[in-house]
Amino acid sequence: MPTQKPMLTQKPMLTQKHGQELINFAHQVADAVGEIHRKYFRQPVSTEYKDDSSPVTQVDKESETRMREMVMARFPEHGILGEEFPPHQTDAEFVWVIDPVDGTKYFMTGHPTFALLLGLAYQGEFILGVIDQAISKERWLGADNVGTFLNGKKINTRKCASIEQCIIARAGFEWHTKGRDQYIDKIWQATHWAQWGVAPYDYGLLAAGHLDMVITAGPLVHDYAALGPIINNAGGLVTDWFGNKLTLNSPNHVVAVGNAALMPDVIKLLNFHEGA
Amino acid sequence: MPTQKPMLTQKPMLTQKHGQELINFAHQVADAVGEIHRKYFRQPVSTEYKDDSSPVTQVDKESETRMREMVMARFPEHGILGEEFPPHQTDAEFVWVIDPVDGTKYFMTGHPTFALLLGLAYQGEFILGVIDQAISKERWLGADNVGTFLNGKKINTRKCASIEQCIIARAGFEWHTKGRDQYIDKIWQATHWAQWGVAPYDYGLLAAGHLDMVITAGPLVHDYAALGPIINNAGGLVTDWFGNKLTLNSPNHVVAVGNAALMPDVIKLLNFHEGA
Repeated sequence: MPTQKPMLTQKPMLTQKHGQELINFAHQVADAVGEIHRKYFRQPVSTEYKDDSSPVTQVDKESETRMREMVMARFPEHGILGEEFPPHQTDAEFVWVIDPVDGTKYFMTGHPTFALLLGLAYQGEFILGVIDQAISKERWLGADNVGTFLNGKKINTRKCASIEQCIIARAGFEWHTKGRDQYIDKIWQATHWAQWGVAPYDYGLLAAGHLDMVITAGPLVHDYAALGPIINNAGGLVTDWFGNKLTLNSPNHVVAVGNAALMPDVIKLLNFHEGA
Repeated sequence: MPTQKPMLTQKPMLTQKHGQELINFAHQVADAVGEIHRKYFRQPVSTEYKDDSSPVTQVDKESETRMREMVMARFPEHGILGEEFPPHQTDAEFVWVIDPVDGTKYFMTGHPTFALLLGLAYQGEFILGVIDQAISKERWLGADNVGTFLNGKKINTRKCASIEQCIIARAGFEWHTKGRDQYIDKIWQATHWAQWGVAPYDYGLLAAGHLDMVITAGPLVHDYAALGPIINNAGGLVTDWFGNKLTLNSPNHVVAVGNAALMPDVIKLLNFHEGA
């Protein structure tokens, strides 16, 4: 008798125990990195500049080094994809994606809105995310089948009724991205108001119900790996600019809404040039 | 025998005792308003919209009302110029200029970068200023002949050696101020890097030596009254875009530098269209 094969899309569920172990570990990493962030905040730090002229400080390097050491010591079979150092066994079942300081320029100018970002992919899908702001001591943690929490308190997005009523933040744009500005302008004109934001802090504020939409252009995987678990498990939705789920290889920009029902119309506005 | 008349520009010095009394009172006002800010932060607040479509919340109104009550009770002979209510005896020798929540939109979206602003003019010149961020609990206070303090610790601007090395923040611009963008672009191209800022928090960061230049367009008196005492007494310089001292009636935009020696060149860049 033929036996039915399991569907390829059907993934083994993480046990509750296993999930809790990963969550506890994510907190330990955030605690350790937070100490490094606080040590250097508003202090002189040695800085180099990358090819794209973005700064890298000793805080970025020391933070990522610490995170890598912790992952390798505790879960030697897991992979690591970080911003500052080469990838490590990224074909593993579990891959940690780390941005040691998202918003390095804000860190360097004394703004308490930079953050540690930590995402965990399981078989290529993000299942756990952390945004940690070490100065304001705000930590967002979202995990599939568990929910999203800000400093341990369960949070939910708010459900803005229409695009017209949305308050939005845009972040991560260079000053002159004229080719992209037209898309953002369309959204801006359609919403209640828009402000310059600070990613990833604004994504955390959206998860907690204080913003309705956040849009960023051109983030890399370490900039968005944490977002899906945090926003989707708070009742919102985050995708690329075409409405696709974020993966380890998302090629596009990122948009999040508190009210998932609005996303189809947001995607249309962001792609208004297509087929028009 | 003719006696020499005192020069009109020669103003009576405030006694040390009198200055300390005013400083103590400014702290009391900031303490009282900070309680109101913390009470409403990230809570639902009732909101109206002004003719220019900017929001006014019950936090703005309650904060300004409290400040006015305190000034009138303690210094009934002083004047008051606030953002939300009509001017009160502004021909007085001392006039308090108050912005109950600078950055109302940031307040409403949960960013801990809004602030209370409090400036004191003596015979038309600003002598005392406070920027108070009630969530991060950061208070800048600057006073002539006394200095500038962040949470009680004396601070100084840093002295960037050249415009090319400056890290700058711009804030308070609408998205499309194309007529103004050309001036800002000139500055941006000339500096090390520029970022979207949050006024007035960035002016505080400049006073404390974390930024080299901050530029804002179109602020009103309650947006800038606190800045001169805070930045100039920390060793920097704040003026309008033509290099003029800020007064109760400054008609122009605002620029601050940590290294006052750079200001003439900054003013030239901001007015490059003149006589070119």
